[in-house]
Amino acid sequence: MSSIAELTARVRAFAQERNWEQFHTPKNLAMALAGEVGELLAELQWLTPEQSAAVMQDEELGPRVRAEIGDVTIYLVRLADVLGVDLVQAAIDKLEDSGRRYTVEAAYGSIAKVRGDHPGGS
Amino acid sequence: MSSIAELTARVRAFAQERNWEQFHTPKNLAMALAGEVGELLAELQWLTPEQSAAVMQDEELGPRVRAEIGDVTIYLVRLADVLGVDLVQAAIDKLEDSGRRYTVEAAYGSIAKVRGDHPGGS
Amino acid sequence: MSSIAELTARVRAFAQERNWEQFHTPKNLAMALAGEVGELLAELQWLTPEQSAAVMQDEELGPRVRAEIGDVTIYLVRLADVLGVDLVQAAIDKLEDSGRRYTVEAAYGSIAKVRGDHPGGS
Amino acid sequence: MSSIAELTARVRAFAQERNWEQFHTPKNLAMALAGEVGELLAELQWLTPEQSAAVMQDEELGPRVRAEIGDVTIYLVRLADVLGVDLVQAAIDKLEDSGRRYTVEAAYGSIAKVRGDHPGGS
Repeated sequence: MSSIAELTARVRAFAQERNWEQFHTPKNLAMALAGEVGELLAELQWLTPEQSAAVMQDEELGPRVRAEIGDVTIYLVRLADVLGVDLVQAAIDKLEDSGRRYTVEAAYGSIAKVRGDHPGGS
Repeated sequence: MSSIAELTARVRAFAQERNWEQFHTPKNLAMALAGEVGELLAELQWLTPEQSAAVMQDEELGPRVRAEIGDVTIYLVRLADVLGVDLVQAAIDKLEDSGRRYTVEAAYGSIAKVRGDHPGGS
Repeated sequence: MSSIAELTARVRAFAQERNWEQFHTPKNLAMALAGEVGELLAELQWLTPEQSAAVMQDEELGPRVRAEIGDVTIYLVRLADVLGVDLVQAAIDKLEDSGRRYTVEAAYGSIAKVRGDHPGGS
Repeated sequence: MSSIAELTARVRAFAQERNWEQFHTPKNLAMALAGEVGELLAELQWLTPEQSAAVMQDEELGPRVRAEIGDVTIYLVRLADVLGVDLVQAAIDKLEDSGRRYTVEAAYGSIAKVRGDHPGGS
């Protein structure tokens, strides 16, 4: 399995070869990331929760969903690279922080307060 | 550097320990991903392109941006896990597909047609 | 009931009074719009479809959802104003266009192909 | 100029005629809204701030941006209708609330703290 580091290097090379780095400001990349997440949501929006759980078995939707996850990952990796952020470490640090705020005892079976970083969710 | 596979396992364990898997349908996870991308955009939205390029040096904004990238990564990894998608491989496959559509010769210095999967962008 | 034209004028005055127009480029406003839509999704993401249908009766969530819809509307109205787009007319024109593509005969009870402007959805 | 009330009725009729109300849960509509906002961002993401300010004069991009604003408006209006929220009044109430938090004196020329409802932004 290829690593994030390898993917990061490939996405960087892809942009450099095409002289696209001029367009890859953090704001633009964040917008592109949001655009691709929007496309991913569009594939799932009319499905029931059950249909969404089986989407990868659908001959037409499965590949589309996989492609959108690929696009989202490409832009996330590129944004993290441009910002100099180790996205896996950032995720691990955030997970540990969340683990302290949503302890197993307090949060078991209840997700109501998890709204990202809103204080109401901590 | 931790790998995506390790992060995936940690995020899965985090959800299992708290009996949160019931909430982690692909639709819900896609919505959570969009919510976190929204929080990331909110940190950058009023900055100029130049300010955004220097944001990680800002004592207050740098950590906030890193935390949001962490959150986005957590949900992307969780969604890919629930769907059974290798997100790094999906990204590599999509990058190769894009490489065929946006050849260096045709796309050098010009990003005007890159709008995701819209035919106008292929 | 106040009109969109009145709201547009109030949002414009709000920005002018605070000398915020310098930050209100279409890109920034589109990012802010995405950020607020993200906050709206965050309020609904862990609810079941049935719970989401009853969310306005929830004492805590109802006001939060209403506030987020308010924020989304503010930024949409501001963006349309800055771009000089009549958003109600743009919506009507798009609805008529969609009516031709998704005729009642062809689309009755089936929403599978409606994915925005993707050709696969037309 | 058509009003929001007229647009709301037309969008509702559009859904009813096609027996699409079954798909129009608040969660699904919020996802569709996010998808359309993503398409709007995709049209602007590679433009400079100056290019984005002039986008409506572009023969190709102008109509695309207008169409996306139309789509965003359609789904926002539909979501508000399904939830029973007066979106213009919700916006006015939110604007008045923001006016108290971001007084002209405190916020003149400075938008740094405006990050939606995050306490850090109030």
